[in-house]
Amino acid sequence: MGSDTILYREINQQPDVIERFAQMEQDPVKKLAHRMRDAGIRQVVVAARGTSDNAARYAQYLLGANNRLPVSLTTPSLFSLYQKPPLFAPDTLVLGISQSGQSPDIVSVLAEAKRQNCITAAITNSVQSPLAEQADHVVGLRAGEERSIAATKTYTAQLYAVGLLSAHLADDSDGIAILETAPDLMRQTLSMNSEVERLAERYRYVRNCVVVGRGFNYSTAFEIALKLKELTYTLAEPYSSADFLHGPVSLIEPAFPVIVVAPSGVLLPELQPFVQQLRQMDAELLCVSNDRSILDLGRTQFPFPSVPEWLSPLFAIVPGQLFALYLAAARDFDPDRPRGLQKVTETM
Amino acid sequence: MGSDTILYREINQQPDVIERFAQMEQDPVKKLAHRMRDAGIRQVVVAARGTSDNAARYAQYLLGANNRLPVSLTTPSLFSLYQKPPLFAPDTLVLGISQSGQSPDIVSVLAEAKRQNCITAAITNSVQSPLAEQADHVVGLRAGEERSIAATKTYTAQLYAVGLLSAHLADDSDGIAILETAPDLMRQTLSMNSEVERLAERYRYVRNCVVVGRGFNYSTAFEIALKLKELTYTLAEPYSSADFLHGPVSLIEPAFPVIVVAPSGVLLPELQPFVQQLRQMDAELLCVSNDRSILDLGRTQFPFPSVPEWLSPLFAIVPGQLFALYLAAARDFDPDRPRGLQKVTETM
Repeated sequence: MGSDTILYREINQQPDVIERFAQMEQDPVKKLAHRMRDAGIRQVVVAARGTSDNAARYAQYLLGANNRLPVSLTTPSLFSLYQKPPLFAPDTLVLGISQSGQSPDIVSVLAEAKRQNCITAAITNSVQSPLAEQADHVVGLRAGEERSIAATKTYTAQLYAVGLLSAHLADDSDGIAILETAPDLMRQTLSMNSEVERLAERYRYVRNCVVVGRGFNYSTAFEIALKLKELTYTLAEPYSSADFLHGPVSLIEPAFPVIVVAPSGVLLPELQPFVQQLRQMDAELLCVSNDRSILDLGRTQFPFPSVPEWLSPLFAIVPGQLFALYLAAARDFDPDRPRGLQKVTETM
Repeated sequence: MGSDTILYREINQQPDVIERFAQMEQDPVKKLAHRMRDAGIRQVVVAARGTSDNAARYAQYLLGANNRLPVSLTTPSLFSLYQKPPLFAPDTLVLGISQSGQSPDIVSVLAEAKRQNCITAAITNSVQSPLAEQADHVVGLRAGEERSIAATKTYTAQLYAVGLLSAHLADDSDGIAILETAPDLMRQTLSMNSEVERLAERYRYVRNCVVVGRGFNYSTAFEIALKLKELTYTLAEPYSSADFLHGPVSLIEPAFPVIVVAPSGVLLPELQPFVQQLRQMDAELLCVSNDRSILDLGRTQFPFPSVPEWLSPLFAIVPGQLFALYLAAARDFDPDRPRGLQKVTETM
């Protein structure tokens, strides 16, 4: 169990998926970026759930830092259940992110945004979906059918779409050029496959862990935690390192597993003493990084290639996906059939 | 251990704190509401961490539903570490919520908002703090010194402040009248004190749990989980019931403890089948509710008084605070000295 699963195949399709996306979806992304500029969009509201919500978290940091756009994650229940939607400012883009484009609560946010005459957009793997129908601009993920219940290739395609949108909005030709190298870098990241299989054994009996990331990789912490919950039934809780110090750090006792996502970049000087502190508390550290000094602090090391910090979430998630896959296998769980889940979750 | 702690005293001071707040802080709250209307504020950005962030979550739903204001929780690291703050639209109120008013990252958000000529406000227990200095409008919590590391009375005072602001913004005299009855209802809620002490015993050996709430009480789920983590070192993860079904439901196995916050109101018909489903999965249900049918589904019942749904978070948190206090005591932990925490956490 592990490499003979659908999940394994889909994780390994990721380089091809983003390559195809880069070849075929430049135009819709460019059009959306132009529309946002022409219409004087000053803020973005995102509606998403589950894995797609983690791509929304990436958008919050990336469009904030690189495009100075305030991005907020909305509260679908105000639209669907309470039926008391907030009134959007007219310079708001309302963006739905969803693999299936089916969940009624997410669709209801875009439908309301249309009623309020906001510009709407959807990033979805299903361009014929109810969500796409409500969107003025549709960006298709072109990931092919995702058969695994745990989303992997649609997540990285969503991140790629957000990254490309940000680069086009900023007319950042360097950014666009780096994005073109992403498929090969992703192939390189996936080469650690069998190493992760070996490393996962040690954690067979882990029941709890926390996953810490911050800034651009706050999204990665959430997504690694979600994969661990879905596939391995580990109670894995995601945190920003700052929020973690405001209370939950009291959880740490010797051998408590902490996965830290800490790539090189602006946040590294902040995260380094944090990781040191965890080590002094004898936490079991699993480090996801492309910085040698951070990796060396980890009992378990998940390296990924050198890339600019803003693009690191696209690669930092990959060892997390592989770890969840092989930890499920080490526990004799079927990664293709997580208990209690269906592929499309329709929530109100 | 339990009733002889500072934490116990502070939990039991809550009715007096909100009574004092109601008597002494009407004017600053009213002035802020008037300013928001006069200035044509169309959206609110909140900066907060830890317990205060959970009060921000309440503001997100309450000001959204009752005042139609989009409220977003900001990303302090974009301001403090990345130094790439988003550009706020001019019709934005930027609100800091903090017990101490000290954390540099929260202060940096308000300082940047001032540079951008936005209206700023602070809700804080320390009206002489760096945060208050950056605020055009300061609402003092008047909770007295909070000596416990785990925040309780400042949390309910923050909720009360947000509730009063929402009512004044809407000129909702019914809402203001109900808020005046809150101190007595809070005393009534606290009368379950010794009952919670007895109920907590059963959970002495719990290591993990999830806490589920939605809408107005999404905040309550987060705050109960935070108290359990800080005081009892239980890995308690908060969820919206909708997000929970998008993946983490696969965690549930027989006897897995799930705390559900499900008061009467708009969300009840949505939460009822969810609680039924958990029961069919043989989860151990702890129900926080003022609805008999929900309470009856729980192995453990935490009732609170009948109030409108929008105000229920003020009371629903109280059994959670007591439960965390007595569970810490049942585990022979000192609730006044959680390991690894200080009262004021200064994060960048």
